[in-house]
Amino acid sequence: MNVAEKVRLAQQLEKLNVDIIEAGFPISSDGDFEAVKKIAQGMTRCEVAGLARANPQDIDRAWEAIKKARFPRIHTFISTSDIHLQYQIKKSKEEVLKITTQSVARAKRYTPNVEFSAMDATRSEVGFLSAVVEAAIRAGATTINIPDTVGYAIPSEFGELIRTLRQRVKGIEKVTLSVHCHNDLGLAVANSLAAIQNGARQVECTINGIGERAGNTSLEEIVMAIHTRKDLFPLHTSLNPKQIFFTSRLVSKITGMVVQPNKAIVGANAFAHESGIHQDGILKEKLTYEIMTPESVGIPKTSLVLGKLSGRHAFRERLKDLGYRLSSSDLELAFNRFKQLADKKREIYDEDIESIVVEEVLRVPHRFKLVYINVISGNVTVPTATVQMEVDGELHQEAGFGDGPVDATFKTIKKITRTRSRLLQFAINAITGGTEAQGEVTVRLEERGYTVIGQGADTDVLVASAKAYINALNKMEFKKQKLVGM
Amino acid sequence: MNVAEKVRLAQQLEKLNVDIIEAGFPISSDGDFEAVKKIAQGMTRCEVAGLARANPQDIDRAWEAIKKARFPRIHTFISTSDIHLQYQIKKSKEEVLKITTQSVARAKRYTPNVEFSAMDATRSEVGFLSAVVEAAIRAGATTINIPDTVGYAIPSEFGELIRTLRQRVKGIEKVTLSVHCHNDLGLAVANSLAAIQNGARQVECTINGIGERAGNTSLEEIVMAIHTRKDLFPLHTSLNPKQIFFTSRLVSKITGMVVQPNKAIVGANAFAHESGIHQDGILKEKLTYEIMTPESVGIPKTSLVLGKLSGRHAFRERLKDLGYRLSSSDLELAFNRFKQLADKKREIYDEDIESIVVEEVLRVPHRFKLVYINVISGNVTVPTATVQMEVDGELHQEAGFGDGPVDATFKTIKKITRTRSRLLQFAINAITGGTEAQGEVTVRLEERGYTVIGQGADTDVLVASAKAYINALNKMEFKKQKLVGM
Repeated sequence: MNVAEKVRLAQQLEKLNVDIIEAGFPISSDGDFEAVKKIAQGMTRCEVAGLARANPQDIDRAWEAIKKARFPRIHTFISTSDIHLQYQIKKSKEEVLKITTQSVARAKRYTPNVEFSAMDATRSEVGFLSAVVEAAIRAGATTINIPDTVGYAIPSEFGELIRTLRQRVKGIEKVTLSVHCHNDLGLAVANSLAAIQNGARQVECTINGIGERAGNTSLEEIVMAIHTRKDLFPLHTSLNPKQIFFTSRLVSKITGMVVQPNKAIVGANAFAHESGIHQDGILKEKLTYEIMTPESVGIPKTSLVLGKLSGRHAFRERLKDLGYRLSSSDLELAFNRFKQLADKKREIYDEDIESIVVEEVLRVPHRFKLVYINVISGNVTVPTATVQMEVDGELHQEAGFGDGPVDATFKTIKKITRTRSRLLQFAINAITGGTEAQGEVTVRLEERGYTVIGQGADTDVLVASAKAYINALNKMEFKKQKLVGM
Repeated sequence: MNVAEKVRLAQQLEKLNVDIIEAGFPISSDGDFEAVKKIAQGMTRCEVAGLARANPQDIDRAWEAIKKARFPRIHTFISTSDIHLQYQIKKSKEEVLKITTQSVARAKRYTPNVEFSAMDATRSEVGFLSAVVEAAIRAGATTINIPDTVGYAIPSEFGELIRTLRQRVKGIEKVTLSVHCHNDLGLAVANSLAAIQNGARQVECTINGIGERAGNTSLEEIVMAIHTRKDLFPLHTSLNPKQIFFTSRLVSKITGMVVQPNKAIVGANAFAHESGIHQDGILKEKLTYEIMTPESVGIPKTSLVLGKLSGRHAFRERLKDLGYRLSSSDLELAFNRFKQLADKKREIYDEDIESIVVEEVLRVPHRFKLVYINVISGNVTVPTATVQMEVDGELHQEAGFGDGPVDATFKTIKKITRTRSRLLQFAINAITGGTEAQGEVTVRLEERGYTVIGQGADTDVLVASAKAYINALNKMEFKKQKLVGM
């Protein structure tokens, strides 16, 4: 994600009404620093947390990034498991205890709102874990987070760990107990719920459950489990479930991470009844097979909104409803693209509008720009592409062939731009149903260890592919210049 | 899925060494009956179960389908929740008790191996549920299954339900206790594990967690949780984890259901370490951030196998390794396609070979056949397709235009075939990396309430799209003739 994309997501998270946004890891790159800073300045209701290892440089840099936030928080962490102490951080238990105290105290000098995490807590010796947590609380931590860093815990065991800590650690009743689970065994949500049942009151989660490896606790599943099972969870979240579906789509669009159809809550089939017996039940009484409604998570019955005859005003209003506040020049840019699209496509859906904004507005500055493309292909034709592009403002033209029309297009663009990126992934999805749908292409490129994701949308999948590839190349140029974190 | 696809999957499930395959619901359609029958005859180690509502016709039909199995099982079910009794099946508790006894007894006349399920068990009054289960056991059921039909349960609660049943129900110690969970709140795997901790010894699950709505318990997650946490689960499964990855890919390919990158165990990122801190740990010692290895679930380090110079023998050997035993005419068909592909693509991966087999061999008979296609497209061109097809053996030709090259292709095919299906979904994925990758297209069509999935693979995405669309149209023709269950 680039800075603009991160900021856009943060705005949506605030609309979803999350309590805290952990916006990034400021010391990890200048781009991440910039993104955290912008998000910190932009949020009016959410707390904004910056991540920091337990050392002075990280903590100072995190504070630098978040200090303008209305509600800033520093989140510092250190490993507590024998395996991490021995192989990764190479420190003794005494050193870890001392560093914990020093780091929390240093963060505390900047802000009263300090979170401390004991990394790999679930594989830590519980006596030592308790001692570290107690030290963090004594030094002033107001939130204590217990991560299942490698996704190793089982719910009954994880619930018990939380209960044990609450019994053993002096002062723990004064702080908010938090959990951060990974999904390697498919148990992140269940582990978080078990923790809640045993006294945890903050759950760290992500939209669509994305995250390192198999991802983290999925926000939408946690929220809807609590909503649906009020009888077992007499608790309150301030979240607005009706924003869940839109947020899920936005995250998927920006990150290029698809949501599988059988994903709970937000998958395309999550509310689809296919079996005859289930359909029969639903027709007789919805409650027979439906424990929550699609409307409750904001899945629109129909998202048809605009057409060829819609004017600038209707377009701006719809953008507002979707949560976008664009500058007038950005609005003009988006509106022009909308008109072009409306010429080709009878009905413009919210998803199409989202794509326009992501593509036209939330883009990094361009080195490479597509001017003209023409492709010929077929089962007895050698696929051939003719492409015209602007490179640093200068017009270049080339033709090339390939194994298929996309291959021909990419090879020709590669020739023109003289780039060396390797294609890691290529995916096309129809954004909205029907044959006149816009195709949305995601391209993942790798060069010198950097990876970037590019996206493009068009009613023509080949044009969308060219746009996505060029978008990725532009991002790669930026990344190489270290201007932006992705 | 058509019959050939179902049989192919069953063969792979036997290779994975599952204990029981629930092959289908024989009374639901002639296609399903046919598939269950073929699978029943084909399995040498697995039990094969046929599903039946609790009535004589269903049970008789299920037996008809499975009677030739080496290890047949009848699985009969009836709802036990007030909400299902009142709104859907409209029967009193006394009637349900009577039907349970009669149905299990009827199944028992055919085979000693009878499973009984209390549908919507988790929303049933526990006293009544216990009475029904006890009646089923008295009538001779050897496996008792407790489904969380609507995905409503929370692990602590579900574990307690299993414990309660074991305490209350007379004779329960003589049967195998089973669970069948749905994933509506993301808790199917956790609920199944909680049940295991409380005495369940059969878990009903699916590959990739596919199934009604948000799907069912994911086999790969259950198996790897038990393997990884032997300390908490002193249990044994006969499953071969090294077949997990291949099975997952096969299911995804045949059903057209994508696996999201952050899916546990089998997602593309499940073993990818992106964060700098995690990468640092992994380089120092894998155990720091890896609780299981990709190799343990059969993820190949490299899957490069064949090239242009590979002969028929090498190709057949590789097919064997992948688990395919083809007839010599099918082998010839697949080998010819392989040679064509090898002309275009330097390296042929296992995934490519899979695609060839799925496309060339596991196909329903064709009404429609693609002969010639040529497409022109671009950002200032009106996308135009010229297509030649055989329809019932007769050659037809048309040209047409559309919003994009895929749209133009589909519209032209629609014109030639005079079909009326509606396009519900269209997705393209690169099967293997690199620009010379084969594109794999999945198309979902709807007509008169039927839906079908078509797939096509080619180095040219437009040719792949045409193939997928035509494959779906052929399946739709079959479906309309009720010859095959999909």
